[in-house]
Amino acid sequence: MRDVSENVVISAPEWIDDVVDWNGVYATDEAKMRVAIELAAANVRRKTGGPFGAAVFEAHSHRLVSVGVNSVVRLNNSVAHAEMMAIMMAEQRVGSYSLHRPDRDHALATSCDPCAMCLGAVLWSGIRRVVTGAGRDDALAIDFDEGPVFPESYSYLESRGIRFARGVLRDEAAAVLASYRRQGGPIYNA
Amino acid sequence: MRDVSENVVISAPEWIDDVVDWNGVYATDEAKMRVAIELAAANVRRKTGGPFGAAVFEAHSHRLVSVGVNSVVRLNNSVAHAEMMAIMMAEQRVGSYSLHRPDRDHALATSCDPCAMCLGAVLWSGIRRVVTGAGRDDALAIDFDEGPVFPESYSYLESRGIRFARGVLRDEAAAVLASYRRQGGPIYNA
Repeated sequence: MRDVSENVVISAPEWIDDVVDWNGVYATDEAKMRVAIELAAANVRRKTGGPFGAAVFEAHSHRLVSVGVNSVVRLNNSVAHAEMMAIMMAEQRVGSYSLHRPDRDHALATSCDPCAMCLGAVLWSGIRRVVTGAGRDDALAIDFDEGPVFPESYSYLESRGIRFARGVLRDEAAAVLASYRRQGGPIYNA
Repeated sequence: MRDVSENVVISAPEWIDDVVDWNGVYATDEAKMRVAIELAAANVRRKTGGPFGAAVFEAHSHRLVSVGVNSVVRLNNSVAHAEMMAIMMAEQRVGSYSLHRPDRDHALATSCDPCAMCLGAVLWSGIRRVVTGAGRDDALAIDFDEGPVFPESYSYLESRGIRFARGVLRDEAAAVLASYRRQGGPIYNA
């Protein structure tokens, strides 16, 4: 009935390299957040997905390891949130299912507070620092639900050694969400 | 620095078709759960991943649409939980990022209560019925954490129209977890 050779392929949109400077050094939370926001904005401008961008960095060198943009509609894959794509691509690049290493930790910047799925994924990825831009309310304002995320969800992750810096460049990040709504982008699963 | 053509590929282990009857009709929760448990057990026996299996079914025809097994270590991908693989493969097969359709809904059977990531993924997938086998405590007993899942997480999903049948064939499902521990399988991210 089914062809087992059907693999699922997670690919970045082809314009990614026009937007991303792979050789940059992103030393501050703000610098990391600008990468995530620019990815989100480009995804809206180029109409390749929802208004969300994310990037994984080496914590010690501040080098970019991977990026992601919301690709749910483009890939027909509800899992293809920006953070999930960035995490999966970072692990592939590093060659490990864990981005937590004693000598080489990783940070995630995401243009909006993660949904329940992406928050859970952060825990399994071994990422130890998360920088977020827009908040849950900003996403809700354009009818993107974030699912079962509670204050205890953050406490739980903090108790597992994950540190959060939330609301970094929040206004700029929220502006991308507003631009998506103005453009009439689809709110899937609203 | 990075080659943008690096795609992430989610593939099933090659033995899948030896274990799965794609032409079966799985009318009851127990029949659906047996598929998930057999996948989990086969994944342990063949040493291709953690002791977790999942499957997506058409709700009206009870036909199998897709399956998944924990493939985190095999694929170097912390997202590759059984439920995530089954959901992504079902969406690819259906050709849509949503498995919720007025005339054709879908159910997920998973051999263990889903972790935080997978619970969130269920919401975005549009799946409306979830059948689980082993419980969070059974997973914890072999040191698999499920992350920030709370009773309110289930209430939240139920308020969004998702129905749960938990603890179906729990003893059989939990026995697979125990067999994994006896075999000395890796507990990654413990």
